[in-house]
Amino acid sequence: MSKVTCQISISLDGFAAGPNQSLENPLGEGGMRLHDWVFATASWRRQHGGQGGTDGVDSEVLDEMVQGVGAYIMGRKMFGGGSGPWDEEWKGWWGDDPPFHTPVFVLTHHPRRALSMLGGTTFTFVNDGMASALTQARAAAGDQDVAIAGGASTISQCLAAGALDELYLHIVPVILGAGERLLEGVGDPVLEPIKIAGSPAVTHIKYRIAKRS
Amino acid sequence: MSKVTCQISISLDGFAAGPNQSLENPLGEGGMRLHDWVFATASWRRQHGGQGGTDGVDSEVLDEMVQGVGAYIMGRKMFGGGSGPWDEEWKGWWGDDPPFHTPVFVLTHHPRRALSMLGGTTFTFVNDGMASALTQARAAAGDQDVAIAGGASTISQCLAAGALDELYLHIVPVILGAGERLLEGVGDPVLEPIKIAGSPAVTHIKYRIAKRS
Repeated sequence: MSKVTCQISISLDGFAAGPNQSLENPLGEGGMRLHDWVFATASWRRQHGGQGGTDGVDSEVLDEMVQGVGAYIMGRKMFGGGSGPWDEEWKGWWGDDPPFHTPVFVLTHHPRRALSMLGGTTFTFVNDGMASALTQARAAAGDQDVAIAGGASTISQCLAAGALDELYLHIVPVILGAGERLLEGVGDPVLEPIKIAGSPAVTHIKYRIAKRS
Repeated sequence: MSKVTCQISISLDGFAAGPNQSLENPLGEGGMRLHDWVFATASWRRQHGGQGGTDGVDSEVLDEMVQGVGAYIMGRKMFGGGSGPWDEEWKGWWGDDPPFHTPVFVLTHHPRRALSMLGGTTFTFVNDGMASALTQARAAAGDQDVAIAGGASTISQCLAAGALDELYLHIVPVILGAGERLLEGVGDPVLEPIKIAGSPAVTHIKYRIAKRS
């Protein structure tokens, strides 16, 4: 059955980004340390048209992430291009052929026409909130999953709303000490770890989120 | 070689105790949820003179915890009995035969004579700080390990001081939302996950802490 999932890297002290995030440094100070494990994998390099990298648990987890995803939802900050009315030149961080290859629904307060990119990725800009984005993404995904691509605040919002079925955390063994927390203001969801895996670089824990009756 | 270790249960959002800790409720609101997995195990029941409980990963982890420990260090709040000068009637939470069966060094600002309990547990009260407690505990432990028993602030202090060799976290799939954080103000230690295990109730991750050169 179609699920709403998400996966995100966090520090051991719970931050999804470091302090002082900016347009130039969207992950904040030290935030890139949360993603070093990704760039080392063979899976990431394949997905981005490269070669080499390391096989193994982390690479398998990354492969798993993109399987069965029929649509993505992301916050505006993750799509990038700054705040306020759109600069139509900005088409995301990912170049002409983004690595999504499905419909992507971007939450924004500012209207913009949809974009069709190479490789099957489309960006649709949603002005009427998370519930509407979920409805549109579910319809686009059919019997495949809807993945919340990020950033942290979009995932938190979705978790708080009880809309997430699975949360896949990649817990990176670093202490950032400050930054943007993932699990703040999300209420008291019923979580059950259903998969654990890891390497010296990162520990993966997949949680199923029960629906409260 | 003798190590300084510790193990502690934390919520997925990083709290080792819930909010509003008090003498009556030392784990704070909801804090007992972090320990439900312990009481369910066969290992815990055996260690506390009981029977029954569940075998399996969590029980094995608890068995592992007490192996090779030659001495413990704990903070005064964990030993209990309130703050200020000692009420000599208070001999800890654990009755006449505490589950440590080794020397235990209790950090306190208030002098008190050592206590010998049944089963080989002794409580020695250390007035001159963590470094002194570590020296005494290492001497008592010989070639066995020194375990920091808790609470969270004692573990944080030890981690911040670079005195910990291993940190074994039991990550419980609950969101407490508030309380006492374990990994705040501990600097930027170099951590490497060296073991992961788990059940639907809890995920265990053991980190080795590298010495900074």
